Amino acid sequence: MGTVQHEISAASGGYLKGVPEIARNKAAVDREKFLRVYNRLKAELIVDSEAFRYTDDSRAWVEKMLDYNVPGGKLNRGLSVIDSLRLLKAGAELPDEEVFLGSALGWCIEWLQAYFLVLDDIMDNSVTRRGQPCWFRVPKVGLIAVNDGIILRTHISRILKSHFRKKPYYTDLVDLFNEVEYQTASGQMLDLITTPAGEVDLSKYTIETYLRIVEFKTAYYSFYLPVACALLMAGEDDQKTFQSAKEILVQMGTYFQVQDDFLDCYGDPEVIGKIGTDIEDTKCSWLIVQALQRANPEQRQHLKDNYGKADRSSVLKVKKIYSELDLQTTFLEFEQESYSKLVSIIEKQESEALQAVLKSFLAKIYKRHK
Amino acid sequence: MGTVQHEISAASGGYLKGVPEIARNKAAVDREKFLRVYNRLKAELIVDSEAFRYTDDSRAWVEKMLDYNVPGGKLNRGLSVIDSLRLLKAGAELPDEEVFLGSALGWCIEWLQAYFLVLDDIMDNSVTRRGQPCWFRVPKVGLIAVNDGIILRTHISRILKSHFRKKPYYTDLVDLFNEVEYQTASGQMLDLITTPAGEVDLSKYTIETYLRIVEFKTAYYSFYLPVACALLMAGEDDQKTFQSAKEILVQMGTYFQVQDDFLDCYGDPEVIGKIGTDIEDTKCSWLIVQALQRANPEQRQHLKDNYGKADRSSVLKVKKIYSELDLQTTFLEFEQESYSKLVSIIEKQESEALQAVLKSFLAKIYKRHK
Repeated sequence: MGTVQHEISAASGGYLKGVPEIARNKAAVDREKFLRVYNRLKAELIVDSEAFRYTDDSRAWVEKMLDYNVPGGKLNRGLSVIDSLRLLKAGAELPDEEVFLGSALGWCIEWLQAYFLVLDDIMDNSVTRRGQPCWFRVPKVGLIAVNDGIILRTHISRILKSHFRKKPYYTDLVDLFNEVEYQTASGQMLDLITTPAGEVDLSKYTIETYLRIVEFKTAYYSFYLPVACALLMAGEDDQKTFQSAKEILVQMGTYFQVQDDFLDCYGDPEVIGKIGTDIEDTKCSWLIVQALQRANPEQRQHLKDNYGKADRSSVLKVKKIYSELDLQTTFLEFEQESYSKLVSIIEKQESEALQAVLKSFLAKIYKRHK
Repeated sequence: MGTVQHEISAASGGYLKGVPEIARNKAAVDREKFLRVYNRLKAELIVDSEAFRYTDDSRAWVEKMLDYNVPGGKLNRGLSVIDSLRLLKAGAELPDEEVFLGSALGWCIEWLQAYFLVLDDIMDNSVTRRGQPCWFRVPKVGLIAVNDGIILRTHISRILKSHFRKKPYYTDLVDLFNEVEYQTASGQMLDLITTPAGEVDLSKYTIETYLRIVEFKTAYYSFYLPVACALLMAGEDDQKTFQSAKEILVQMGTYFQVQDDFLDCYGDPEVIGKIGTDIEDTKCSWLIVQALQRANPEQRQHLKDNYGKADRSSVLKVKKIYSELDLQTTFLEFEQESYSKLVSIIEKQESEALQAVLKSFLAKIYKRHK
């Protein structure tokens, strides 16, 4: 499994294939509207307030830092708040104010993502992110990036307070972001202590550990959080609804991460936009976990000897064992089974509106190639 | 000015000189009770919950990380919540539950401090903290410490939610911690971009910048936050009271930091427990700011040539100019003036209980030597 760097990539290409031109235009318009909300939120954040007085230098710093780190991803997590809210309201046209608020929550998720990514890149000593040098590698930034990560985190609270303080669901919203942050950081901790840099201990790469890392590090903030935000805005207050949505979306997030791990090895680099390096990087990927479960003693020894080495021949040896173990078929079976299970539990949901939200998420990721 | 590493150090020695034995014992008992609350909070945090399932390794990691970073300071910020609450309740004996809750809020401040310190030490590439290696220098920790900082932050939200969710002031409490975190991170940003490592630009070391950094980076979380917590617990809901307390405590925090900067150069290393290095570290200290305001062109050139150099003769040249400019007298005048101003605005406060709290803070720091 990789770091939390993965984007929900389908929306910007994969699942729009075959979608009529008019719907594509709608997606482009939504994206443009969404970006306008970013500019408004940014402008509000860098104005002097009772809480903080800027100097010209510090205002310029924050503005540059935000532009560099917040809006440059595929924005699918953020956009999905508004999409979900529309479906929860049975497709009704949302008033402008609701669109703004839903977008603001979407941006809070993008801010949260930026916060994690800025700090993850420091911990992983990464080189590039979203096609540009990682923020901490930008001249004059360096480890100031650690504090910039904190600043990003504090901006979420600022946005929530300025726009939601008087809403009846404000406290639940703040609690939600806090809980998801706790889960993500705890998942990241599990990942960091299970696969510490420079050490390889494949005995720790079990399916239980894998699933736990994925659930906490990726699924809650990428899948549950956008829907939970939309549910709160829609006035949902039945804890059972949140609970069901959580269970299903965490499963979906797991399925998404397994796809991600699969594509890292078997995806078309032209399509996924990067050359996978999970094998070289000793990642606790779904593939290595499956391979270790199935390998005979000889294959296991080969995996031990070659996993986490940067040279081409080691990588090829690992891939050869994946092939001997027919992991591509294992993946296809997993994909089919996950899909059927998900459809079946989604259809058991009482609320049709929630069903629509969950199905729309599933449609975006099922059989994706990027 | 140094980093946020400074402890409000008076309480553990300085201001207790001359205090009768019985009061000293009371301080020791309070401290012991306070530490018991730490153990309870820690035990609660590392239990599996709906929000997160631990592995044995991750539970052991968090426990070690907490013990290493949270309780090892002088605990004055944390202890002052209970002290303030007692004074607000006119010295009445607090019920056990109130003592526990006030202590829990005190620990939230200590957790906040630990979060800042763990990350500050990484940014400053520091070596030791509280007499032991900085957390990121502990073997097997390294940059995982960045994520541990985040974990510390998320624990504050967990503690507030488990023990205060049903209190009428819960939302205000969460908002308070968020606002103070924002202020501290913003102050830290100001400091980092004003005095970047490896660059010396003394033209930026103005009194305006100095005061702004101190206010945001230190005063809010060290002085305002404990009192604001106590006010919320005491049921205060008049915004004007919080506003006045904030103004006064921010001034007191500024006075405290100026003392800190003074003691870094003129304090007795045996008493303050460290050898000051603000001159060597190019710190934006109150002394250099005062010196630059008063220096003639020749002195200014000497300061430029020698400030921020590690060798003994450069440090001595800087100290010689401080002495020529008679900054010790400047400091004594500043101290006297600050004290008189503070006493005068404290006495203008309507609430006698609040007056008592503010005077108690002032008594702890006035003319301190450590």
